[in-house]
Amino acid sequence: MSNAPAQRIGVLGGGQLGQMLGLAAIPLGLECSFLDSSPDAPARLVGRHVVAPWDDRDALARFAESVDVVTFEFENVPAASLAAIAAVRPVRPGVRSLESTCDRIREKEFLRAAGVPVQPFAAVSTPADLDLALATVGAHGVLKTRTLGYDGKGQRVVRSAAELAPAWDALGRSPAIYEAFVPFDREISVVATRGLDGTIVAHPPVENVHERGILFRSIAPARIPPALAAAALEHARRVLVALDHVGTLALEMFVADGTIVANEIAPRVHNSGHWTIHGARTSQFENHMRAVAGLPLGDPSAAGFAAMVNLVGGLPETAEILAIPGASAQLYAKAPRPGRKVGHIGLVADSAAELESRLADAERLARRVNRLA
Amino acid sequence: MSNAPAQRIGVLGGGQLGQMLGLAAIPLGLECSFLDSSPDAPARLVGRHVVAPWDDRDALARFAESVDVVTFEFENVPAASLAAIAAVRPVRPGVRSLESTCDRIREKEFLRAAGVPVQPFAAVSTPADLDLALATVGAHGVLKTRTLGYDGKGQRVVRSAAELAPAWDALGRSPAIYEAFVPFDREISVVATRGLDGTIVAHPPVENVHERGILFRSIAPARIPPALAAAALEHARRVLVALDHVGTLALEMFVADGTIVANEIAPRVHNSGHWTIHGARTSQFENHMRAVAGLPLGDPSAAGFAAMVNLVGGLPETAEILAIPGASAQLYAKAPRPGRKVGHIGLVADSAAELESRLADAERLARRVNRLA
Repeated sequence: MSNAPAQRIGVLGGGQLGQMLGLAAIPLGLECSFLDSSPDAPARLVGRHVVAPWDDRDALARFAESVDVVTFEFENVPAASLAAIAAVRPVRPGVRSLESTCDRIREKEFLRAAGVPVQPFAAVSTPADLDLALATVGAHGVLKTRTLGYDGKGQRVVRSAAELAPAWDALGRSPAIYEAFVPFDREISVVATRGLDGTIVAHPPVENVHERGILFRSIAPARIPPALAAAALEHARRVLVALDHVGTLALEMFVADGTIVANEIAPRVHNSGHWTIHGARTSQFENHMRAVAGLPLGDPSAAGFAAMVNLVGGLPETAEILAIPGASAQLYAKAPRPGRKVGHIGLVADSAAELESRLADAERLARRVNRLA
Repeated sequence: MSNAPAQRIGVLGGGQLGQMLGLAAIPLGLECSFLDSSPDAPARLVGRHVVAPWDDRDALARFAESVDVVTFEFENVPAASLAAIAAVRPVRPGVRSLESTCDRIREKEFLRAAGVPVQPFAAVSTPADLDLALATVGAHGVLKTRTLGYDGKGQRVVRSAAELAPAWDALGRSPAIYEAFVPFDREISVVATRGLDGTIVAHPPVENVHERGILFRSIAPARIPPALAAAALEHARRVLVALDHVGTLALEMFVADGTIVANEIAPRVHNSGHWTIHGARTSQFENHMRAVAGLPLGDPSAAGFAAMVNLVGGLPETAEILAIPGASAQLYAKAPRPGRKVGHIGLVADSAAELESRLADAERLARRVNRLA
């Protein structure tokens, strides 16, 4: 066989996900280019950085022409921009993965059609929808904008029927989804990758804790019974296949009363998979890049017990992080601002008890510096 | 505590070792600059790259002034150049580590003084030294230039008294060392790191196989009795302390007849430690950067059974590497030329038997493409 030239991968978005994708790509001999409107994009450190806004169609076309294949680390790329790129080069994962997940109603309908259980939900587009939504979902729920929400932004908790209309007002009467509140025991997610040839590898399910809508920490593997873990993995598999997805995605789920309800899909590498950099045989980032480049996928299994704690809005001294046994620092080269993810602490341990003690140290440190929005 | 600004690390040399140092530095928030005379230096992908020759004293001084601390991935930096840099910024490891290892006679004398066993050796500087060298060392030995040798270059095997003088002629009558041949059972090395505070962490000893003077593969941990492993680790510890070394180094040793004889010191990250990227909790590269930046060191232990196979002078398809279970690809972005290290295959496994089977696959692949000089 000949030595094929390094594949050139174009990445839409150059945030910390892009940076970690780039770090995984370099040893594989892949050349990354990142399209991001910010000159300070974290991924600038690990590849070519093209500064352009999402609506500059000429710049997008030139970017696509300069690479062999395009992927994304940011899923809210405008549809017209993505179409302009897809006309020039293959986009992996494909347009279906974005279209099925960019709207929360479509996402829930997709999950249900794929055979993955979801909580009751209803669309709220006009004032007339409010009563039907209450009748379908009940008086305890969460109202979310259908598009563009992330990290808890664009949502309101509803605790009684009277709260729904004001909540919708607070969201500017944007097209919304009203979902039944799930009294969950645990939040879990599965981060998995599907290769260009259809092969699927999945990291073990992880257990997540959010604070004010932002992921605070993940523990891997999740402390759930094997049958639940198997069900969670099967749900992720169904999503990957139904989307004909190429690359990594995350399926976020609730464990409630011994069963699983799917919450949402992130059609890309995901914060709840960051532990894989230090805690798995192959990281979610490396497997994503392998998939996008058409390469065989790597072993996703955990190497021991692992965890991840987010640093949000502030950073401790790096020495304080590294003084925790088994800790690694992953810093994103971003200026700290309240609510902004600026780094994470990776943790590995040989036992659940050892992990727990290290995690307590890391959480204490994070709580001291974190500033949520 | 305040958020200190990212430390700026200057690295002398920008080869694959520099590239792997840079990949480890980015997540730590360290900013690397690499000084290398080649515009194609592999480290260009992971930091600022300053192109300048080693004898451009002005460029060296400006480089040193632009960073907080200087380290190296290439140990044959001219002494005058290093002195120019050391006058401006701290150099870690220090000048002692370079001075004690850049000359093979001084290196052996240093090892002996540090209490580390070495084989018989003698300096050959004039024709009159040849007879004394034969009397001291014997008629079976290796003649090496005192300086600048690497990857088997600048050495000749001597199998009888009559071969010594011609061997010296073949080396251009350069100042040389004549060392007794060690009929070794295994070649091993210890890669270890000493922090700025004197803390030492060591990866488990590895077992190395060279072919034509170039490392072909390493297996970690080395398959040697625990007492020998403990002795090897103790030798490395003595070297680190005696050098007052800050950073990573490798001590290469022979196991012969159930005892250990030290062969040479590499005062930097080393090829026999490349397995740590995929096979250890913390890599040699990360621990070196932590040490140089004055940060706490990470857990050096092996996560399972690991190995590394060098790709020299040629590359297979990346997909062929990754098709081997447990394999990772580390490619250096260098154009293949005979005798040039262009990448390596990392391997991890859950058992010695599993590793052996994967290693056989990787070695077969490497042998197909490798072209030694």
